[in-house]
Amino acid sequence: MTKDGKMRLGLSMRYLGYHVAAWRHPDVPADGALSFEYFLSTARKAEAAHLDMVFFADGLGIRANDNPKGSLARDMRNAELEPITLLAALGATTSNIGLVATASTTYNEPFHIARKYASIDHISGGRAGWNVVTSWSDEEAQNFNRNENLAYEDRYERADEFVDVVKSLWRSWEDDAFVRDKESGLFYHEDKLHVPDHKGKHFQVRGPLNSARTPQGEPIIVQAGASEAGRELAARCADVVYSNSHDLKHAQDYYGDLKARLAKYGREPEELLIMPGITPFVGKTRQEAQDRFDQLQELIHPLSGLASLYNALGDLSGYPLDGPVPDIGGQKLRSIASNLLEMARTEKLSIRQLYQRVASTFWVRLAIGTASDIVDEMEEWFKNDGADGFNFCPAILPGGMEDISDLLIPELRRRGLFRDRYEGRTLRENLGLKPSIFKLA
Amino acid sequence: MTKDGKMRLGLSMRYLGYHVAAWRHPDVPADGALSFEYFLSTARKAEAAHLDMVFFADGLGIRANDNPKGSLARDMRNAELEPITLLAALGATTSNIGLVATASTTYNEPFHIARKYASIDHISGGRAGWNVVTSWSDEEAQNFNRNENLAYEDRYERADEFVDVVKSLWRSWEDDAFVRDKESGLFYHEDKLHVPDHKGKHFQVRGPLNSARTPQGEPIIVQAGASEAGRELAARCADVVYSNSHDLKHAQDYYGDLKARLAKYGREPEELLIMPGITPFVGKTRQEAQDRFDQLQELIHPLSGLASLYNALGDLSGYPLDGPVPDIGGQKLRSIASNLLEMARTEKLSIRQLYQRVASTFWVRLAIGTASDIVDEMEEWFKNDGADGFNFCPAILPGGMEDISDLLIPELRRRGLFRDRYEGRTLRENLGLKPSIFKLA
Repeated sequence: MTKDGKMRLGLSMRYLGYHVAAWRHPDVPADGALSFEYFLSTARKAEAAHLDMVFFADGLGIRANDNPKGSLARDMRNAELEPITLLAALGATTSNIGLVATASTTYNEPFHIARKYASIDHISGGRAGWNVVTSWSDEEAQNFNRNENLAYEDRYERADEFVDVVKSLWRSWEDDAFVRDKESGLFYHEDKLHVPDHKGKHFQVRGPLNSARTPQGEPIIVQAGASEAGRELAARCADVVYSNSHDLKHAQDYYGDLKARLAKYGREPEELLIMPGITPFVGKTRQEAQDRFDQLQELIHPLSGLASLYNALGDLSGYPLDGPVPDIGGQKLRSIASNLLEMARTEKLSIRQLYQRVASTFWVRLAIGTASDIVDEMEEWFKNDGADGFNFCPAILPGGMEDISDLLIPELRRRGLFRDRYEGRTLRENLGLKPSIFKLA
Repeated sequence: MTKDGKMRLGLSMRYLGYHVAAWRHPDVPADGALSFEYFLSTARKAEAAHLDMVFFADGLGIRANDNPKGSLARDMRNAELEPITLLAALGATTSNIGLVATASTTYNEPFHIARKYASIDHISGGRAGWNVVTSWSDEEAQNFNRNENLAYEDRYERADEFVDVVKSLWRSWEDDAFVRDKESGLFYHEDKLHVPDHKGKHFQVRGPLNSARTPQGEPIIVQAGASEAGRELAARCADVVYSNSHDLKHAQDYYGDLKARLAKYGREPEELLIMPGITPFVGKTRQEAQDRFDQLQELIHPLSGLASLYNALGDLSGYPLDGPVPDIGGQKLRSIASNLLEMARTEKLSIRQLYQRVASTFWVRLAIGTASDIVDEMEEWFKNDGADGFNFCPAILPGGMEDISDLLIPELRRRGLFRDRYEGRTLRENLGLKPSIFKLA
């Protein structure tokens, strides 16, 4: 729970929603992922609901492979706007909502990233956030002069140094460095310029950044660390963490573990906000909510469904969809395969039923029910050390955002769990984070 | 001259204008280079005048050094918005004007550049252009893991391959590849996807790009090739060239040379538009124009002036500004030094008078006079194979753009040399370039 007893809420709006069949839903504009108007109108709905921020995940290329053959051509994850340019454009066309986009530390340079996010913070008047990720797929590596991905340890070592360099670039100039005195001709105070001159294992970056301190001081840092190295990076540097938990126990364990890591970096527990993802299917009745979910599940193309099982169970395209799940052997992901096969046997699931479990929402936690049901669960997590708020990942957009505005937000406000206006000027202020004070490393 | 007899006109708006003392002018907001509103209001003035495009030059860091000591702190070129994010934001807030920004091929990756410019083309409805440059300074190299800049030949070899990779990524998908058929579940036609799978000397990029063909087909390519390799790159790939000529003879030689190079790449002369830079000081009378110029010249801080002479003539800060120009020896740029010293002797220039010649407008051609005087010169260049149009580089902004709108554009229209409305939907159409037809390399 946060100190002020209010949840922090974000909207994640990648592609056309977080359900694999979102694009086939009758209410969804199937070409929306290339339309700025689509994202702008959805972001404005989120802003009208006073959400803290919108968020864009990212991959540096198409990460899905075409297994079984023909599945990729049924996948909506093939063409989209690029998130940094999209963020800048939203910065110029929205007023209050925070703007967070993903950029990889694996295939970028710190100078570019420091500069672009600082620029977006200036353009948006202090609403920019950088979601720090490492890139894990061979498909992305192959777009950047490599045959295969970097090893886990190398990725995180590079990410750690990358973030440090970015932060030192953001601290090139003190807050009041630029005096711009027309009379004397002095543009900046020389003693308020600090050239980073970083020389490390992965990067050599002299600086300074050719930008001033930003309206937030510095853009906020978002992370989604689940692994050991990811959690340490989050504890050291992040302002917000997007987590992924399917039950309260897991959420509490994660929350407790991460908050406990802060002290060794001289940080207070409230300096890092933990926001699990949630995909709500909300209806005026439980049946209506379930019907909405079932409608999308029916729209999963069998090839998309089989693709979601491929890495664990192999190519099942030669077997009857409504028959039992065969163990054809040769699996690469042996432990996941065992779990899935056991689930299928215990619950007597057909291939179709199994892929409906797996394919639906890219692994984000589902919440199906009335507004009261879903807010009950959110409140329970929030008040019992499982979350400081939530990152909504609607199954379809813009419809899913409309449901949040119309059904969930009023219920959250009725219980005093969410704001009814923006109190701060910047994202950092609205999140209740401490001001970013200039300091040298 | 263009085929339709109309000039193409652009506005270059780096920093606060192209005069080194622009920020000290009483009408210029000295903090404008970090203000999106500043650039937006200026771009909207250019759009109201129906200019073809606005343009942002760029450097990846602060390229000026602090010689003589103290000069850098008098220089406005220290903090600015980043041009790709600025371009995206302008794409969402303007309607018709073309949007061109610089990105270096020396310290970027083709996948990022292809993706970001495609995204801006989608966001802006077909108005994006990429100004292709190579980075030449050690200061930039030191922000990207190097001690010193790449050699000229390596830079251009890399640039050549870089542009080819970007173009092949923009041709990953045919125009009608994305069918998005909700009924059948088919998102794209597999036979309309073309994976570039580039393997070259500098880059290995598999692709495809995770974007569709853009409203322009592909963003336009701008270049400013002056050297041999730069001219070849422009002749092979560019749609627009920004050139720099100080007299008609030079402009004609350049124009003739570049247009003649097109044939060997299977291109017609009108497929490449040549637009020299021009910095107009325009007044209702010649005296008013001269006074405007003189006012800015007086505002050049002596340290900024001496900095403009430093690389050629060394540190002259110990000599009287109104005394003769000494030859203190040890010059690195011997031929430029000789020219400057000879000019100073022949014309009996003091140090101050010499730096006023050199420092004023970053080497862009000056035109000082009434609207009629300046348009006479533009018309002469345009009608005598010196230009297809011009790239205005006003000394101060937004005032310089207001002078263009109020004084130069009406005179150009009176003579039938410039449009009075946007006829096309995209930048490519407004420039009168051929449509970008999908083809594989």
